[in-house]
Amino acid sequence: MDFFKVVSVGEGKDMIWENFKDYEFETEEVNILASINRVLAEDIISDIDVPDFNRSTVDGYAIKSSDSYGATDSIPTILNIVGEIKMGEEAKLTIRSGQAAYIPTGGMLPEGADGVIMIENSEKMDENTLLIYKPIVQGENIIFKGDDIKKGSLALKKGRKITPELMGVMAALGISKIKVFKKPRFYIISTGDEIIDMDQELTIGKIRDINSYALYGLIINLGGEVVGKAIIKDDYNLLRNEVDKALDLSDIVIISGGSSVGARDYTHKVIDSFNGRGVFVHGVSIKPGKPTLIGEGKGKLIFGLPGHPVSSIIVFKTFIENYIYKKLNMDYIMPRVNAVMDFNFPSSPGKVTYQMVKLNEIDGQYHAEPSFGKSGMISLLSQSQGYIIIEAHEEGVYKGETREVFLL
Amino acid sequence: MDFFKVVSVGEGKDMIWENFKDYEFETEEVNILASINRVLAEDIISDIDVPDFNRSTVDGYAIKSSDSYGATDSIPTILNIVGEIKMGEEAKLTIRSGQAAYIPTGGMLPEGADGVIMIENSEKMDENTLLIYKPIVQGENIIFKGDDIKKGSLALKKGRKITPELMGVMAALGISKIKVFKKPRFYIISTGDEIIDMDQELTIGKIRDINSYALYGLIINLGGEVVGKAIIKDDYNLLRNEVDKALDLSDIVIISGGSSVGARDYTHKVIDSFNGRGVFVHGVSIKPGKPTLIGEGKGKLIFGLPGHPVSSIIVFKTFIENYIYKKLNMDYIMPRVNAVMDFNFPSSPGKVTYQMVKLNEIDGQYHAEPSFGKSGMISLLSQSQGYIIIEAHEEGVYKGETREVFLL
Repeated sequence: MDFFKVVSVGEGKDMIWENFKDYEFETEEVNILASINRVLAEDIISDIDVPDFNRSTVDGYAIKSSDSYGATDSIPTILNIVGEIKMGEEAKLTIRSGQAAYIPTGGMLPEGADGVIMIENSEKMDENTLLIYKPIVQGENIIFKGDDIKKGSLALKKGRKITPELMGVMAALGISKIKVFKKPRFYIISTGDEIIDMDQELTIGKIRDINSYALYGLIINLGGEVVGKAIIKDDYNLLRNEVDKALDLSDIVIISGGSSVGARDYTHKVIDSFNGRGVFVHGVSIKPGKPTLIGEGKGKLIFGLPGHPVSSIIVFKTFIENYIYKKLNMDYIMPRVNAVMDFNFPSSPGKVTYQMVKLNEIDGQYHAEPSFGKSGMISLLSQSQGYIIIEAHEEGVYKGETREVFLL
Repeated sequence: MDFFKVVSVGEGKDMIWENFKDYEFETEEVNILASINRVLAEDIISDIDVPDFNRSTVDGYAIKSSDSYGATDSIPTILNIVGEIKMGEEAKLTIRSGQAAYIPTGGMLPEGADGVIMIENSEKMDENTLLIYKPIVQGENIIFKGDDIKKGSLALKKGRKITPELMGVMAALGISKIKVFKKPRFYIISTGDEIIDMDQELTIGKIRDINSYALYGLIINLGGEVVGKAIIKDDYNLLRNEVDKALDLSDIVIISGGSSVGARDYTHKVIDSFNGRGVFVHGVSIKPGKPTLIGEGKGKLIFGLPGHPVSSIIVFKTFIENYIYKKLNMDYIMPRVNAVMDFNFPSSPGKVTYQMVKLNEIDGQYHAEPSFGKSGMISLLSQSQGYIIIEAHEEGVYKGETREVFLL
């Protein structure tokens, strides 16, 4: 039993940041095709103008815009067709007043021209004669050189998560290798005399290791990698040896605890045993997840997560995801959906409460109902698509109100 | 030029479904640790009870609940401590009236007991004597055998995307190998005389292939794989040969078009040349993305996407993601966030309009402003975090209203 103060969620996040804001996550270079969902570890400055020539955005005719002034359906302007711009080729002709040249979408604007009249607003009378039925303004239907991205300008900021769209941007800039943060390395240790792994026989009194699998998935989806995974009996020396090894191999060690008092004591002592700061968060006012331990050993971040699956998932999302996003400078937006609450639910005064919910779509509107179940039930996980967060100052959830449901 | 009818987004989705609802996506078995974000290809029926024994959810004493009736702080009930249940071990003792045994969270309930009194509501006077200060009801603080998941019951439905939480559920059920749908195989062909790949020199008039990289990322995030990727000049025979090869290797072929009329004609003819249904969607009332072609050849789905990056991304999300989710039975929820619109924006009557937006968080509330730019600009992609959908029947976006922004 310890008698330390339980901290708020905000205080807990601040304490992690204070202790680990200077922790270095290494970087590596990856090929663009392998970069999806990685995090940019450098600003990307464009070394070209995009586009690198004046380009038409439509199929039409390149002209001098002043030639089109006054053109109408009834009194079209007549221009002389002097040639055709080919896709992917340099435009070698020059447009003078009274002249026009066919140009495809993406084609290079010829010298002298300062606008493109869309094909729909013109009519080709014969090989050499074009009628135009509408005036255009200077620059109409053209992207000028560097209009999109200027040479030397900041194209993408460090910390951006590489989406499909950003892959397109990097391709446009001709960047085939990208400096990204290495995947944060995690080591997961499940503790408990009752815990057995997948391949062991489920004898009476034992339960299967659930948390390390859920945590494994959370780590992958966060963009991390799992460098080790172990199940350790409730024994101080066994646990200390495993954590010692884990600290050498990983950036962050997660001890997924037995939820009994004894198991928590072992974990606490082990975290304190590396001549570092030891445990600096001794419990958090979060529900579920209160008996969370957060500490430091050998310069690495160590979490002692509660044994119940839902608790350990919530604490992972609240603290570990938050730290990684902040540390890698990511402007991450938590995916969510609006839903009508089909239930009343009381808050726990002074605590941030996470409640798992099921979502149903009714006439294009999502409705949420709580996934109830006794503590530790895994059906809470199989039935839920998301969770709501009830802040410490809130009174609770009222039936009929619309809230944000964060997606699992 | 073709004179076929442009269809609505809904009609387009229906026509794809009609033609490809019976297309078979194969299945494969994967290890649980490799299953994250894959899609279940079978119902999972539990072959065990979870838990498989009556389990305590707290640290406390296993008792007969009737012994606790009437217990209060001032008049506690006195019970005789007859033993201790060890974690992970079978409970071998039997509780009779007047008796109690220590039980940790997760411990197996001994025979005779029908409730657990929390340690906080009791006091151990000596090795053999326990005072209890509160009554408990039958079943209090116990999960009974099968309470969570019953043997023989449906634990997870076919079509569920495997989240971290579902990995936990499968671990609890002892399922180490899971039948999932094979990743849908895509082949991406970029067409256009002006298009060059990353490693080629950017000479005047050329532009780099952007779409195939953005599409690559979209395919990976959709859970698919890219089995081939090519850039083909605007030439019927070259394109037909490549599509022919692509149809043999993949489930879905994407031709990312030159946006000029000529390029679209080639694509149309090629799709029609495989003695199949050919092109069955000749344009969609969607903005951007109107000149989309959708067809069938050799029994495979073929898309002719517009050349502009934003258009091709929008069409991919609208039709390809929708088809895959529906086909694999997935109850997918598009990630989104609520945002205040900081702009007025007109709709295009009769068309579904997609508008890319930038998101800013101000005092915990997201605000959206439109990413404007001329058609085809890649900075539209680098600046946007999401997009809004303005339905065909809507009048537009009003400044100050709150809408859902779908995240990129």
